[in-house]
Amino acid sequence: MNFTELVRDVYQKIENIEDRGEMASYIPELAKVDPTNFGVHISTLDQIHFGVGDCYDKFSIQSIAKVLALILAYRIVGDQIWNRVGVEPSGTPFNSLVQLEVEKGIPRNPFLNAGAIVVCDILLSNLKHPKEDFIAFVRNISQNETLDYSGTIAQSEKEVGYRNVALCNFIKSFGQIDNEPSDVLDFYYDLCSLKMSCKDLSELFLFLANNGLGVHNNESILTESQSKRINALMQTCGFYDESGEFAFKVGLPGKSGVGGGIIAVHPDQYAIAVWSPKLNKKGNSYRGMKFLEEFTTRSELSIF
Amino acid sequence: MNFTELVRDVYQKIENIEDRGEMASYIPELAKVDPTNFGVHISTLDQIHFGVGDCYDKFSIQSIAKVLALILAYRIVGDQIWNRVGVEPSGTPFNSLVQLEVEKGIPRNPFLNAGAIVVCDILLSNLKHPKEDFIAFVRNISQNETLDYSGTIAQSEKEVGYRNVALCNFIKSFGQIDNEPSDVLDFYYDLCSLKMSCKDLSELFLFLANNGLGVHNNESILTESQSKRINALMQTCGFYDESGEFAFKVGLPGKSGVGGGIIAVHPDQYAIAVWSPKLNKKGNSYRGMKFLEEFTTRSELSIF
Amino acid sequence: MNFTELVRDVYQKIENIEDRGEMASYIPELAKVDPTNFGVHISTLDQIHFGVGDCYDKFSIQSIAKVLALILAYRIVGDQIWNRVGVEPSGTPFNSLVQLEVEKGIPRNPFLNAGAIVVCDILLSNLKHPKEDFIAFVRNISQNETLDYSGTIAQSEKEVGYRNVALCNFIKSFGQIDNEPSDVLDFYYDLCSLKMSCKDLSELFLFLANNGLGVHNNESILTESQSKRINALMQTCGFYDESGEFAFKVGLPGKSGVGGGIIAVHPDQYAIAVWSPKLNKKGNSYRGMKFLEEFTTRSELSIF
Amino acid sequence: MNFTELVRDVYQKIENIEDRGEMASYIPELAKVDPTNFGVHISTLDQIHFGVGDCYDKFSIQSIAKVLALILAYRIVGDQIWNRVGVEPSGTPFNSLVQLEVEKGIPRNPFLNAGAIVVCDILLSNLKHPKEDFIAFVRNISQNETLDYSGTIAQSEKEVGYRNVALCNFIKSFGQIDNEPSDVLDFYYDLCSLKMSCKDLSELFLFLANNGLGVHNNESILTESQSKRINALMQTCGFYDESGEFAFKVGLPGKSGVGGGIIAVHPDQYAIAVWSPKLNKKGNSYRGMKFLEEFTTRSELSIF
Repeated sequence: MNFTELVRDVYQKIENIEDRGEMASYIPELAKVDPTNFGVHISTLDQIHFGVGDCYDKFSIQSIAKVLALILAYRIVGDQIWNRVGVEPSGTPFNSLVQLEVEKGIPRNPFLNAGAIVVCDILLSNLKHPKEDFIAFVRNISQNETLDYSGTIAQSEKEVGYRNVALCNFIKSFGQIDNEPSDVLDFYYDLCSLKMSCKDLSELFLFLANNGLGVHNNESILTESQSKRINALMQTCGFYDESGEFAFKVGLPGKSGVGGGIIAVHPDQYAIAVWSPKLNKKGNSYRGMKFLEEFTTRSELSIF
Repeated sequence: MNFTELVRDVYQKIENIEDRGEMASYIPELAKVDPTNFGVHISTLDQIHFGVGDCYDKFSIQSIAKVLALILAYRIVGDQIWNRVGVEPSGTPFNSLVQLEVEKGIPRNPFLNAGAIVVCDILLSNLKHPKEDFIAFVRNISQNETLDYSGTIAQSEKEVGYRNVALCNFIKSFGQIDNEPSDVLDFYYDLCSLKMSCKDLSELFLFLANNGLGVHNNESILTESQSKRINALMQTCGFYDESGEFAFKVGLPGKSGVGGGIIAVHPDQYAIAVWSPKLNKKGNSYRGMKFLEEFTTRSELSIF
Repeated sequence: MNFTELVRDVYQKIENIEDRGEMASYIPELAKVDPTNFGVHISTLDQIHFGVGDCYDKFSIQSIAKVLALILAYRIVGDQIWNRVGVEPSGTPFNSLVQLEVEKGIPRNPFLNAGAIVVCDILLSNLKHPKEDFIAFVRNISQNETLDYSGTIAQSEKEVGYRNVALCNFIKSFGQIDNEPSDVLDFYYDLCSLKMSCKDLSELFLFLANNGLGVHNNESILTESQSKRINALMQTCGFYDESGEFAFKVGLPGKSGVGGGIIAVHPDQYAIAVWSPKLNKKGNSYRGMKFLEEFTTRSELSIF
Repeated sequence: MNFTELVRDVYQKIENIEDRGEMASYIPELAKVDPTNFGVHISTLDQIHFGVGDCYDKFSIQSIAKVLALILAYRIVGDQIWNRVGVEPSGTPFNSLVQLEVEKGIPRNPFLNAGAIVVCDILLSNLKHPKEDFIAFVRNISQNETLDYSGTIAQSEKEVGYRNVALCNFIKSFGQIDNEPSDVLDFYYDLCSLKMSCKDLSELFLFLANNGLGVHNNESILTESQSKRINALMQTCGFYDESGEFAFKVGLPGKSGVGGGIIAVHPDQYAIAVWSPKLNKKGNSYRGMKFLEEFTTRSELSIF
């Protein structure tokens, strides 16, 4: 299997199909992005690094940052984190609120907005300088000093973040947020504003294909068991209520963001990142999903 | 990795922990089973077949049969099946009814009772002699003529099956059941009454670790793509609202039944079946779940 | 206030507005009714009996019969009935199933299908010849021997009654139905098939304006307290999720049926029945609702 | 019927039964109130004004103020208000959030917190000095200059108001709040902090028994139709998910507050206020509900 050729072939095929997605419109700054952007980058454990298209352009990774927040919190508080947030898929989007009520403020999983907000609350309670410490952690595991927040995007999201204010205060009303909601949300918007390129993403997430060991220095970022569990969570919960569809058609653990990015991990082999801003009806990148489906079908490299 | 030793070791460890499960009580016949039964059997692609404990005793496989029904229907009608049933996890148990209503009689996935009932309806419309044809199919893929229904269990389940009557008629009210509800349910109860041992199960399901090829004759039971998709579905939906937990802790595609059986598949390697009748609060075998968690932790053989 | 003139005036006005309702289509027999039918009949405690239009034509009263079933059950078992069914409005239509699940098979009120099915179950357990005893009761309180079931309508409804089969079996699965679901439903379909004219209805229900005393003989059909409570229930729950709207715009206790009939009661004054088969989006007679709104607005005779 | 004697008799009876209610604990200031307080005051259209117990002590009327906010908004914007808030009962408490989502930020009725928040938003958009103008309106219709907000209670409620922040921002996320959520909530907390005695309340609400005409000067506060509609709303929605029970047992339009106050209106006759701080499980005054049930049973003065 020649990954380089396959990435190029599939990229060309998907580039030529009609993009039926729609730009995310609710965050003004995201709506300004050029909708024709399309990039892919793969990084493998045997040292292949290859990209096509707009693979070096940085974009807002949005919810992909939830995985990074989870990883840092998991490192710090260990399995206690699961007292605050579950590991089950949530069913449908509207469930997030119903289930929060039924389940007394315990979000179903850390990749729902509600769950990521709880993870931010945990980080806020455990980091001395949350914003600085978090970016330092991200730069360190990727050995990439260019990674940074976007103040413009964080601000843009904050200005229209009524739903997130609702979620955070709703959880707080069950006593499941320790810090001030406005502080938790400010940190949450910072995380979601992280900008990375496909290249940055595939290199950063490669350690999850490596049983939790950093690929530059073999240092343990997560234990092997923790790393597998993060992958399992991305498999079952990474794409909101399209998670089953993604497992079914792509067959890899992964996580999408409303900025049009997707990261997917093949344990023991590679990490691959795709970016194309227009989204399907479930809020995941239209061309990104198509690319990964075609890629794993042709490589026959789903984990199943 | 010596599977034989590992199975034996983990079996002994789990045998000695307290079994905190409870017997399923709602089906009278199931409640009669000896609660101390405990068996495990593994079958690998490189020809290891090994079992411990009550691994040759036949028990009611219950919902595990939903996978077999799905496989046969998928063979017959292909991807059209996904017009009638989804591939997404359902969130919580009570959602099955809410979601049926919101989603107009399309069950979220084929492993919910609602979904399996729809699959039975499809089989009824496509098989000449449904009951006979189905058991013939099961015997054929496992090359095992001893497999059979249990009339006593089917009857016992039918007598208390008010919830299933409700589900089937509810779906019918949306026009999503073609046959008479009572016929569909009779067939459904037959399937759930199938009796197999752990050995029967691990041998039968091994083809799903073999990309859909029968292990006795290399004939295609499912295409490679179909086989991967069945595995993906078992991964995301196989354990009701404990599916995320199972992916998280065990990391294999699998399916449980209320009779206390669990089958799990490691693609390209093995199938393993566990049986212990007492169930945890989510309705999955208490010792079965513990065994598989310990087994994959020690073998480091989760798919993630 | 001259009721006779007012009824005639409002009738003429409503007759001339466009009827934007739709015929109920799910029960074949009901769809055969002439959609232009429109009748009104009022009966007052001071002996006015006056009707216009098709006020002597008998039609299927459908859910209005739920009030009669409740009255008979309330007479027989008294306040114990409230252990089996609630007195609260249900919110939205889909709640009936969600709430049945959350509330373990106790329907929110006796005017939901679920609640009426439970009331039928109670009658079945308490009447020697349920079908005969019930019609005898209805004939007796109205002193009207012409009242009867329609076998054709009962049969028509039964043939498409999958949703009711679902409801009844669902409640049975919680142990809240004592008899066989099929027997309960047969009785339920009989009740809903009752045929009455507007005149029959306004005369029959007049005793609820009379504190529970029969208007022909002053015998107690219900105690004063029971009679008030039936009226209160019709006020808060008589029109499904348009109950608030009806209280708001009409301001009388009442009950509608999918056959296009509505009965409304003004305590201490009168009962009024309207019939027009085309239904608004909430399933209540389009012209019937308009008539009653106009009638109480102009008579200033809402109870509020 | 001698109201004076009846009020005194029923008061003594209820005073002697065990108070099984619990103090509202979530607002610190409310928890400080003496739980043994118990007062009743009746005001009739034929000039009877009579009270017993702690009927002159001012307490926090809480949600009863929602009726006053609705009345003022209804006066100002007329029937347009119903584009922003419905008139249907909500079913169960948890529905408020589910239904807000399903119904795109349109609260079911103006007596839910969500609905009252929307009414406050309307007032904020239509009053020059909302806080001052509102209290002036309340003082004017009651001809009572002693009525005022309690800054302490408003502040206490604000400090723990996470659930209300969630509700208001959730509605805002659907575009159904025009002003800043924090401004809307500040005004909302002010309203809920209004302090009145039973005497103040029964005199203030008497105009709703008088077809909307002020009892001091016969000036129109609401039109007759509007006044009836407010009563209808209090009947169907005034007691959350105990509204049906209240209609069933008491049979009067009314509204309760978490401070333990209840106001009830008998159209064309009287208004009656009860106060006792300990609440039943539905959040309504335990002794208040008992008092009114007994009072209307013995006076046979339910509206039904």
